[in-house]
Amino acid sequence: MERYVMTLSCPDQPGIIRAFAEGVVQAQGNIVDNKQYTDPDTGTFSMRTEFDSPISDLGAVRSLLDDALAAYDTTVTLRPEAQRRRVLLMVSKADHCLLDLLYRWENGELPVDIPVIVSNHTDLQPIAERHGIPFVHIPVTKESKPAAEAALLALVEEHAVDFVVLARYMQVLSDDLCSALPGRIINIHHSFLPGFKGAKPYHQAHARGVKLIGATAHYVTADLDEGPIIEQDVARVDHAWTAEQLVAHGRDVERLVLSRAVLRHAEDRVLMTGARTIVFA
Amino acid sequence: MERYVMTLSCPDQPGIIRAFAEGVVQAQGNIVDNKQYTDPDTGTFSMRTEFDSPISDLGAVRSLLDDALAAYDTTVTLRPEAQRRRVLLMVSKADHCLLDLLYRWENGELPVDIPVIVSNHTDLQPIAERHGIPFVHIPVTKESKPAAEAALLALVEEHAVDFVVLARYMQVLSDDLCSALPGRIINIHHSFLPGFKGAKPYHQAHARGVKLIGATAHYVTADLDEGPIIEQDVARVDHAWTAEQLVAHGRDVERLVLSRAVLRHAEDRVLMTGARTIVFA
Amino acid sequence: MERYVMTLSCPDQPGIIRAFAEGVVQAQGNIVDNKQYTDPDTGTFSMRTEFDSPISDLGAVRSLLDDALAAYDTTVTLRPEAQRRRVLLMVSKADHCLLDLLYRWENGELPVDIPVIVSNHTDLQPIAERHGIPFVHIPVTKESKPAAEAALLALVEEHAVDFVVLARYMQVLSDDLCSALPGRIINIHHSFLPGFKGAKPYHQAHARGVKLIGATAHYVTADLDEGPIIEQDVARVDHAWTAEQLVAHGRDVERLVLSRAVLRHAEDRVLMTGARTIVFA
Amino acid sequence: MERYVMTLSCPDQPGIIRAFAEGVVQAQGNIVDNKQYTDPDTGTFSMRTEFDSPISDLGAVRSLLDDALAAYDTTVTLRPEAQRRRVLLMVSKADHCLLDLLYRWENGELPVDIPVIVSNHTDLQPIAERHGIPFVHIPVTKESKPAAEAALLALVEEHAVDFVVLARYMQVLSDDLCSALPGRIINIHHSFLPGFKGAKPYHQAHARGVKLIGATAHYVTADLDEGPIIEQDVARVDHAWTAEQLVAHGRDVERLVLSRAVLRHAEDRVLMTGARTIVFA
Repeated sequence: MERYVMTLSCPDQPGIIRAFAEGVVQAQGNIVDNKQYTDPDTGTFSMRTEFDSPISDLGAVRSLLDDALAAYDTTVTLRPEAQRRRVLLMVSKADHCLLDLLYRWENGELPVDIPVIVSNHTDLQPIAERHGIPFVHIPVTKESKPAAEAALLALVEEHAVDFVVLARYMQVLSDDLCSALPGRIINIHHSFLPGFKGAKPYHQAHARGVKLIGATAHYVTADLDEGPIIEQDVARVDHAWTAEQLVAHGRDVERLVLSRAVLRHAEDRVLMTGARTIVFA
Repeated sequence: MERYVMTLSCPDQPGIIRAFAEGVVQAQGNIVDNKQYTDPDTGTFSMRTEFDSPISDLGAVRSLLDDALAAYDTTVTLRPEAQRRRVLLMVSKADHCLLDLLYRWENGELPVDIPVIVSNHTDLQPIAERHGIPFVHIPVTKESKPAAEAALLALVEEHAVDFVVLARYMQVLSDDLCSALPGRIINIHHSFLPGFKGAKPYHQAHARGVKLIGATAHYVTADLDEGPIIEQDVARVDHAWTAEQLVAHGRDVERLVLSRAVLRHAEDRVLMTGARTIVFA
Repeated sequence: MERYVMTLSCPDQPGIIRAFAEGVVQAQGNIVDNKQYTDPDTGTFSMRTEFDSPISDLGAVRSLLDDALAAYDTTVTLRPEAQRRRVLLMVSKADHCLLDLLYRWENGELPVDIPVIVSNHTDLQPIAERHGIPFVHIPVTKESKPAAEAALLALVEEHAVDFVVLARYMQVLSDDLCSALPGRIINIHHSFLPGFKGAKPYHQAHARGVKLIGATAHYVTADLDEGPIIEQDVARVDHAWTAEQLVAHGRDVERLVLSRAVLRHAEDRVLMTGARTIVFA
Repeated sequence: MERYVMTLSCPDQPGIIRAFAEGVVQAQGNIVDNKQYTDPDTGTFSMRTEFDSPISDLGAVRSLLDDALAAYDTTVTLRPEAQRRRVLLMVSKADHCLLDLLYRWENGELPVDIPVIVSNHTDLQPIAERHGIPFVHIPVTKESKPAAEAALLALVEEHAVDFVVLARYMQVLSDDLCSALPGRIINIHHSFLPGFKGAKPYHQAHARGVKLIGATAHYVTADLDEGPIIEQDVARVDHAWTAEQLVAHGRDVERLVLSRAVLRHAEDRVLMTGARTIVFA
């Protein structure tokens, strides 16, 4: 038996689930987990399904589903669960998010393939090497940015990358790059957005005297720090902590929030409706 | 358009969702929210669905669904969302859970009907009266317990009660009563079960020096404090707090946990698989 | 034995604790709880102490402490624990924060006196009456605002009010009023500040697709939504919730956060250092 | 200026803080952080203080404090903040707690010295070596246990170890070893004690259907899983998660809870009162 993971979104109308279920039956499939939600604001039907089928030919299964859904204007993704999403990690100098992702990947918690790690610095190259992952150093200056981004896109192409994770990568991406990979770049911002956008959020948080600090994982769009939010969390802070101690405690929130967002994206649990995400956790 | 809420559980086998979806299409329905999960341990298929249909006759819709599902050994509940679950509240002397439930009920957060409040004391009668709900005093002694429980069952019958909530009701129910209303009695236990079963859990927690206190809402079974858990939560405590302060802080957790459990049950979001619950939150 | 609660703040310098402890010894006192912190940014020494003394004359104890601390430029508050802070509650139409405060007050969790409840509407008058608290209706229009605030200040004077709580009071206070009661007015804002300042924060939160909603209790200053934060908390939300459901769930966070802030202020646990608070929880 | 960290506990009586503060003044010190609490159940006075002094000779400062406190039956610890606690880590095969502690140690979050890592297996030796910490393999069988524990105690002696951390060390310590290092061994138990004591707590939690899983860091005593609790936390779980997924998610709670407990112990923030801890966080 092959386990398949499918997502489906389309403008809502009656009959979609019957059509989809008919397709699964045609594929001799058995649905084991299904979550569906129609957003009343946008009228978008969103669904995530896991089903088992004795047919191991992905193309054949896809074809049966497409036939069954032919009457609807659907966007469908389908993959065998065993065929993992491929993720390109981007880092700068901070290592906590990278280490957390690699730890979960190595012990089987994070079912992805990581063909390459890219950085604008070389500080974290030893970590990549220790885990046996190719490391590509792409320095970025104001002048070299277009060439650097072209090199990145070439790596995305070469390695058949499904999505990119900015694991505390400290360069702002150009609008062109954001547009080239819509819904395929995940960033971790070290604040509870929309509070404390921009630089040095922990220092802003300290000056403001907040009682909780947070982190936000979101898809990257051309609007900096404004992309659809995937996951957020917070941690309580003490009045005696300095801004530097907020930074240290914030690392725990950042790595947990980013790892959860990456996991959910990798498992095809995040769908978009307007500027918001649906997370079938 | 009528909004219907449906639950379905059955031994898992292929084709159930197609059959169900066919039934919805026959009812000219449109599914707007669907959650399904098959438990690998018990092989139980569980599903909760909301759909809209122009057919306002409940019996007719039910019939179309039953026909479509005739080949499967299903347990189905179906009701118009507007037809609220009917809940009988039982209390003793503590008022915090009762007040919280009534507050949410009055401002529309808790879509239930409350035909009657029952207590083994009269302390909370004024609260019932202030909210315009009939209050029935059923004292309980060791001798009168069978008669008292018979009176309770008569009220359940008379008021067409869907489920009973023990909102800090301090009498242990007999095995017979538990068996008469399986999966239809919700209790709040003032500890994070399975820790601190039995009496005076906050004093046990204080003596043990735990750093978090909790509360557990569960279905009542003949095994005291062992029924399927619906919801739990905890709150952090300070070393300076006395057992009495734990009790006071615990009230916040208790009322939130019980209200969440009652809401989810009232919205048909809780299904059973073996000794565990599935909560389609 | 009388239990005293004392706070002390002053520019930091060596010897303060010895001087203070000498004063307590002179008052034949025994310290049972003491928390002190010096903020490195502002150089402010802050302390909260509980001590027992056989001297029941507040003036005499105060005098002994003042003598002992004469060499330091201190700001001291001292009261018998039994002499409760007096709080004036202000409300508009939403009742959840008011009910929560009154519930805790009635069952002894919130050790304050509530001499009067003020509102710009009459909707909540029955609640005040049910709890036996005088209710004063002070309508506010653009024209009547100065007179309304003068009436409020007269009530503060008349009832020897220690602090004012805006329990979802929906009028913006004038700069003059804010200045007249510095650090003595507590507001609850229904967002996780500094995110979603201003009006309709839950609708802003829904549009932005945040995964947690929050509430913030803070001291009121002339800068709207910018005063020193006393307490904050958040709750996780679901993608299926409408803005209205965020509002309903937000009520739970608001009432908990405001009640915690009021309790801590009432127990003299909140001190100021610059634009931030120290909370000796 | 030298920053000192001091703890003081003794049977409560008036004058202790004055005496202590006199000692600090004699040491030309300035107190910057002080927390004190007297437990009414046990009558134990507990205090933690940070102060700055121009005297860099620890013995001289200690002597001045001892003189000032001579009239009281105190237990005092005093160290320059720069003189870190020395911790011996014990592990078996699971690496998540070890990695987390080492990560925090390397980036300066965890101010301890780690002279040696001990294990009954060799699986984690490469991690110790990568971080440049001596690794000692002490296999344990039923027969060799006394010799193994003697070897451990020799290492504690040789390396002047302040405390031992069982970072998922899977051997039960003998009563003799527990007694030899009272309040100096910290263990992480992978459940929210007192629920799910003993083996395979996540499988117990799965079978029971709890909605939160937890972890508990506690001092080790001869009573297995019954020692004074230092820190606890929980995480919400989903009905769809298997016992194995609970194990995976539990790792996050375990490493956070253990690291927090180790940090607080290392900073002398944990004092004992009866069977409970006071944590001056």
